[in-house]
Amino acid sequence: MAVYTEVSDADLARFLADYDLGRVLALKGIAEGVENSNYFLHAERGYFILTLYEKRVDEKDLPFFLALMEHLAARGVNCPHPVKNKHGSALGRIADRPAALVTFLEGMWRRNPSVRSCAAAGGALGALHCAGADFPLSRDNSMGLESWRSLFEEARPRSGELQPGLADEIAKELAFLNANWPQHLPRGIIHADLFPDNVLFLDDQVSGLIDFYFACTDQLAYDLAICLNAWCFEPDGSYNLTKGLALLGAYERIRKMSAVEAEAFLILARGAALRFALTRLVDWLNVPANALVHPKDPREYIKKLRFHQQAKSIRELGLLR
Amino acid sequence: MAVYTEVSDADLARFLADYDLGRVLALKGIAEGVENSNYFLHAERGYFILTLYEKRVDEKDLPFFLALMEHLAARGVNCPHPVKNKHGSALGRIADRPAALVTFLEGMWRRNPSVRSCAAAGGALGALHCAGADFPLSRDNSMGLESWRSLFEEARPRSGELQPGLADEIAKELAFLNANWPQHLPRGIIHADLFPDNVLFLDDQVSGLIDFYFACTDQLAYDLAICLNAWCFEPDGSYNLTKGLALLGAYERIRKMSAVEAEAFLILARGAALRFALTRLVDWLNVPANALVHPKDPREYIKKLRFHQQAKSIRELGLLR
Repeated sequence: MAVYTEVSDADLARFLADYDLGRVLALKGIAEGVENSNYFLHAERGYFILTLYEKRVDEKDLPFFLALMEHLAARGVNCPHPVKNKHGSALGRIADRPAALVTFLEGMWRRNPSVRSCAAAGGALGALHCAGADFPLSRDNSMGLESWRSLFEEARPRSGELQPGLADEIAKELAFLNANWPQHLPRGIIHADLFPDNVLFLDDQVSGLIDFYFACTDQLAYDLAICLNAWCFEPDGSYNLTKGLALLGAYERIRKMSAVEAEAFLILARGAALRFALTRLVDWLNVPANALVHPKDPREYIKKLRFHQQAKSIRELGLLR
Repeated sequence: MAVYTEVSDADLARFLADYDLGRVLALKGIAEGVENSNYFLHAERGYFILTLYEKRVDEKDLPFFLALMEHLAARGVNCPHPVKNKHGSALGRIADRPAALVTFLEGMWRRNPSVRSCAAAGGALGALHCAGADFPLSRDNSMGLESWRSLFEEARPRSGELQPGLADEIAKELAFLNANWPQHLPRGIIHADLFPDNVLFLDDQVSGLIDFYFACTDQLAYDLAICLNAWCFEPDGSYNLTKGLALLGAYERIRKMSAVEAEAFLILARGAALRFALTRLVDWLNVPANALVHPKDPREYIKKLRFHQQAKSIRELGLLR
């Protein structure tokens, strides 16, 4: 939620000299996305998003992200389309940072997703998994199971500041997940962060999926669990079974999960909850209490984790078998 | 540089029901402006800026600001044009905050203004002063000389954290300005914050003046001094006389200052420097050192103040008589 790098006139002119966009008509910093600096760019040839990749993104991953967006767009997924420069590359540099231009997508993200929005999100995720099936590159999930232990060790000493007893609770869950995590489910390209603010709508239709900077190769059903956690709980922490049924049903109309995936789904949902609880916890502990930008509350995801821990069957999530 | 208030789907729909803009196609928070929450809004009928006024803006001043923009736009000043709703009002409410829609202006602000940009800014300020001459409303300058004493008292106890001896230096300057501040110069509508980020350009032409939320009634030449300080110093702190000549010359081709104004100009420039040194100092002392958003450095304006203190004549600023 910030612009970390100011773009000077000379920097912008130098960067755009490699493109054929015509005159620049407007450039505004966008207050969305916490990892990179994003600008809305209006040029004679169209509307674009200009992204400067800040240090939290590993430069060597950028070709993967850009090629993936191009691949998905070519297969009909509404996602930002990287614009290539005159040298045929989608990647340039501004102010000593890697930078890329992608097409601007119309649409608004749903601050309060309805049941129909949840169904649309589930369907879009299914379509993304299918469209990614023949993508030739791969990337390890840097936020997968193996990373949770070190995130926890980083947060552990001060996690009691958030909630007494939290360290023990997380340690127990980590041990459980390490012992029970499924290993052989169907893998492929996952978005890994399909929260409501990454799905744009025009009326009831999904008009765009954005922010592919956590995308990687991992178990597909885990991506669905991340999505379910992000869309199907209410602000008061309760699980909305109707939304769960809608999201899972729409996903499975496009890609039906196998019996093994369905059976593992509750564990995947626990892992997906713990992953966001841990990253939020680390952020929460590292931001001063009176900062202008408030980190997201990790407790939201601790509550989701507890919901899944007490669930006795995938039917309680709305996954029908 | 933030969006302080999230706009829910229902809030936006309720607000826009009073307008006739067609379907909403995009809404993005803009990372510019530190006082309010600003959104870029694309609707079928055009491109707009949606502003939610946060607590630093006094609600009773809003009719002044909106009427002023309307007045100036009607006189050919390129500034945002408030859009009236079906009830004939330019002011509505979103999320319990006053909110207004204005037209989106194309153009980019100059991160590194050239001599020609400085001339264009000076000319635009002259035109603004002329266009405002018959505006019927008035508003006291809440950031004028009278406010500096209390800003200083707020910052005084900790001002040494920024620079040893700063409190004495400011106290001396305040005493000087209180004794010497001109009282009877021509008054009118001033922008009061015409920094580079509030002037949009397309090529070498000014395409828009924005952010009228400090506008008020005050001595016109003081506004020119604020503008000069903001545009004519280089990043290393040195005064660029060529830029000063260009900015002042372009202003005076539109509104020639009287002999009394010219004579007082060095004192006005000192006051204009102290005003921004003081507000930046207060912000600087009130933001935690490790916050994500860094306040602007007050020392930039202390340096500008010292430059004006040592100047022996208005000719050193480029004001020719």
